[in-house]
Amino acid sequence: MKVLCLDLEGVLIPEIWQAVAGHTGLDALNKTTRDIPDYDELMQFRMRVLREHDLAFSMIRKVIDGVEPLPGAREFLDWARERHQVVIVSDTFYEFAMPLMGKLGRPTLLCHRAHIEDDRLAGYTLRQPDPKRSAVKAFQSLRMTVIAAGDSYNDVPMLEQADAGYFYRAPLNVRTEYPQYAAADSYSVLKDLIG
Amino acid sequence: MKVLCLDLEGVLIPEIWQAVAGHTGLDALNKTTRDIPDYDELMQFRMRVLREHDLAFSMIRKVIDGVEPLPGAREFLDWARERHQVVIVSDTFYEFAMPLMGKLGRPTLLCHRAHIEDDRLAGYTLRQPDPKRSAVKAFQSLRMTVIAAGDSYNDVPMLEQADAGYFYRAPLNVRTEYPQYAAADSYSVLKDLIG
Repeated sequence: MKVLCLDLEGVLIPEIWQAVAGHTGLDALNKTTRDIPDYDELMQFRMRVLREHDLAFSMIRKVIDGVEPLPGAREFLDWARERHQVVIVSDTFYEFAMPLMGKLGRPTLLCHRAHIEDDRLAGYTLRQPDPKRSAVKAFQSLRMTVIAAGDSYNDVPMLEQADAGYFYRAPLNVRTEYPQYAAADSYSVLKDLIG
Repeated sequence: MKVLCLDLEGVLIPEIWQAVAGHTGLDALNKTTRDIPDYDELMQFRMRVLREHDLAFSMIRKVIDGVEPLPGAREFLDWARERHQVVIVSDTFYEFAMPLMGKLGRPTLLCHRAHIEDDRLAGYTLRQPDPKRSAVKAFQSLRMTVIAAGDSYNDVPMLEQADAGYFYRAPLNVRTEYPQYAAADSYSVLKDLIG
């Protein structure tokens, strides 16, 4: 039996921070690990922007409540869950993503925790170092064959560790740097790759 | 974040082999690990009974298609999946249980594989030794807090390994032998225990 480890943002739902950027008009929140490669540096930057504009977590939650799965995502996920075991492995926070899981049929989610204090995003705790690779290893320790799919650099450790790894709608520079992973740009191609 | 590792048969759905016994009228198929403690011995016995009566896997599949979740199971599971990550950890086979997963909203399932040859149950492969304890360990390796609930002896290693373990509708002898685990007899009590 196969476990399919899927990235969340960019694969099944839009990027949450970009939705917040769109809602608030704060272009600074459009920055990703492509602009600030260090995740902690990026998160500290985002939290500083939120603080400077006195933006509440409840505002972010409202934006998140309006986020819809990418077109075809739910159907793809249903297809995958009929055939394999599916686990979402994401670098987002439970406090951000859990309200969206209902729209995806509540798949199992492994991600991080945000610290909310006085309705402000005050910090976060990573689940563990090298979280995506560790997730794949854990399922391999259960003698499951792991297939992984993601769209960016932070997914590469998961693709490396998995028995098979694929890019899904990854930017050209990411694909070019890691040509060993087949790349899909539609769910139907990803379905063919996964099998 | 907590992972809730739940046994399947007796907790969320009726015992599959007892449904097959009921359908075929073969009382021998009602035997469980309570009668034949060694799992392999029990499975060899069941396969022998099926062979003696020339019973096809497609017949078993038809029985399984008629199995419904226990009353309240789906609602309990939905409640749990809104709050925690839920993984079903079972000693059944994917070939038996996957058709039932749709009725439960397709939670992640860890179990074993059956070998079907010429529409006959020809054998099986256990996922790994000590499968339920290993499942809990794998999620603990991901720094998740694990809560486990099950109804019988084969769940005890999972309850032992988990950060918290509970019996659900376990027979009196099982509870008496392991008084250290709180026991629930209804989903509402199990909800209170899980929190």
